Amino acid sequence: MNEFDLIAQYFLPLTQGRPEAMNLRDDAALLSVPQGMQMVISTDTMNQGTHFTTDAAPANIAHKSLRAALSDLAAMGAEPLCYQLAIAFPQKPDPAWMAEFTAALLEDQQAFGVFCSGGDTTGIQGGVLSISITVIGLVPNDKAVKRSGAQDGDALILSGPLGDAFIGLQILRRDLHSDDDAYFTRAYFRPQPRFDLVPAMRVHAHAAIDISDGLIADLGHICAASNLGATIHLDHIRYSEAAQKLIEKGGFDYKNLLSAGDDYELLLAVPENAVAEIMKHHPSAMQIGTFSSRHKGVVMIDSQGHSVPFEDSGWSHF
Amino acid sequence: MNEFDLIAQYFLPLTQGRPEAMNLRDDAALLSVPQGMQMVISTDTMNQGTHFTTDAAPANIAHKSLRAALSDLAAMGAEPLCYQLAIAFPQKPDPAWMAEFTAALLEDQQAFGVFCSGGDTTGIQGGVLSISITVIGLVPNDKAVKRSGAQDGDALILSGPLGDAFIGLQILRRDLHSDDDAYFTRAYFRPQPRFDLVPAMRVHAHAAIDISDGLIADLGHICAASNLGATIHLDHIRYSEAAQKLIEKGGFDYKNLLSAGDDYELLLAVPENAVAEIMKHHPSAMQIGTFSSRHKGVVMIDSQGHSVPFEDSGWSHF
Repeated sequence: MNEFDLIAQYFLPLTQGRPEAMNLRDDAALLSVPQGMQMVISTDTMNQGTHFTTDAAPANIAHKSLRAALSDLAAMGAEPLCYQLAIAFPQKPDPAWMAEFTAALLEDQQAFGVFCSGGDTTGIQGGVLSISITVIGLVPNDKAVKRSGAQDGDALILSGPLGDAFIGLQILRRDLHSDDDAYFTRAYFRPQPRFDLVPAMRVHAHAAIDISDGLIADLGHICAASNLGATIHLDHIRYSEAAQKLIEKGGFDYKNLLSAGDDYELLLAVPENAVAEIMKHHPSAMQIGTFSSRHKGVVMIDSQGHSVPFEDSGWSHF
Repeated sequence: MNEFDLIAQYFLPLTQGRPEAMNLRDDAALLSVPQGMQMVISTDTMNQGTHFTTDAAPANIAHKSLRAALSDLAAMGAEPLCYQLAIAFPQKPDPAWMAEFTAALLEDQQAFGVFCSGGDTTGIQGGVLSISITVIGLVPNDKAVKRSGAQDGDALILSGPLGDAFIGLQILRRDLHSDDDAYFTRAYFRPQPRFDLVPAMRVHAHAAIDISDGLIADLGHICAASNLGATIHLDHIRYSEAAQKLIEKGGFDYKNLLSAGDDYELLLAVPENAVAEIMKHHPSAMQIGTFSSRHKGVVMIDSQGHSVPFEDSGWSHF
């Protein structure tokens, strides 16, 4: 099976027959943008050994790669349309690997309403598996939710429980053991792009980001872009039942979760008067703090109102 | 210098201040598509050791990666708009490397009228340098030139001399020596996306492809997509002066150039009555054959009209 057979057998079905992909036979994909809409584009790369472990199942690699990329569209208030898949193989992949990998992509395509519009399949001699996904979404003109729009007095909303993915990664690395290993590793490999929040975001959110680099780091990005500070009330952060159990058992410091990436929950800046409306429709969401023009950067306070110091401010590749 | 410093110092200038890139500080880029236009998207990956040699200069890697990707837009009759840059580093790149790499990208951005709209910078532990570029272009509604539109009796046009890039690669591999080494290696590293032909293509071309996999293979793609055959008149193919000199000196079989990739010249199917018009404005173009519904696949004939057999039909990664 050469490169072209591989594409025809495994990648072509991912186009779901959409004419935009032109059967992966042309030089490019051809997309029409509905009038009144803008296109939102984001690229995410996942490399073996850096973003997923060498023994990760093909389905898990697929889920994580596509979902992490899609999450950036949700963070902009966009609806997903399609994606370009660039995949570099250190050696010819075996059919079982390809079948599982592409079945998982197709499952997520159906879950999130996207199709594969094209990409590039290459060999990477002497390298490791590398997957780079460029997602394309749509948002009504001037309705994109940027990082830079947070306002003084806005509530800081977190869309769901923090840290499950990070705990999953510790379990995968055998640095941690829990009674809920499968739950946590699933959270790591199958983050949930929060498209369910997009309609509310377009109406209410002044700013948004997804937590890929860690709560503190990503909140810092909103603060920097909006020229504001933010205060996190640590006791307002909810964890999953499984994570809560682990924290209560001791031996695991919840503070690690504040700088943990890979969650892909959203952080939103919304006016105080919209908080109740968002909570009503999104019970997993929580208000964990506020934005303020009186200071810069991120401050964390405990239940007694004392400032809590922190050092690690998130993931950097170098 | 961490990942964010690297992005701010070296990649941010590539956005040229365009608001669509949002200073590379947001989750995604935000593009507006002018009314009456469609978006054309293509992805090309270049990996060290596979697509460029380990000792390739950063500027050459940049030129080749961006130009090869842009060529796919030209092959669709599109004008270039912007690109997403995914780059995976096996170790932290040094400042001199980054400076040369990004200066070369900027030079090509100015030459071809594109800007960097976003991307992803990652580490790839235990891997090799991998660059995946997704280019985005625009074409008027229903004016994209596909591979599938060639018609019986169409002329087969090649946009410029064949094989210089392949000769350049042989020189880089020290398999060949010429009096014009610098000319050939430049052809390899700096292919010329043929946007100059785009206006004529939109009016006249029934089908187009760029020669990235080799003349015979890529012509085969047009034939398959258009359900036609094509005949190449070998003596109608022109080579560059430097290549001609090399062929005449002996020791180098011109047939190697028929299946050589990396040229990124265009192959066009145009009606016979448009050939003169195209030649007038594009003197480097040549008619090298015709399309026919009387046979399938690619046939080559020599100056005596005899069929010439061939085996190698182009590059495949596996």
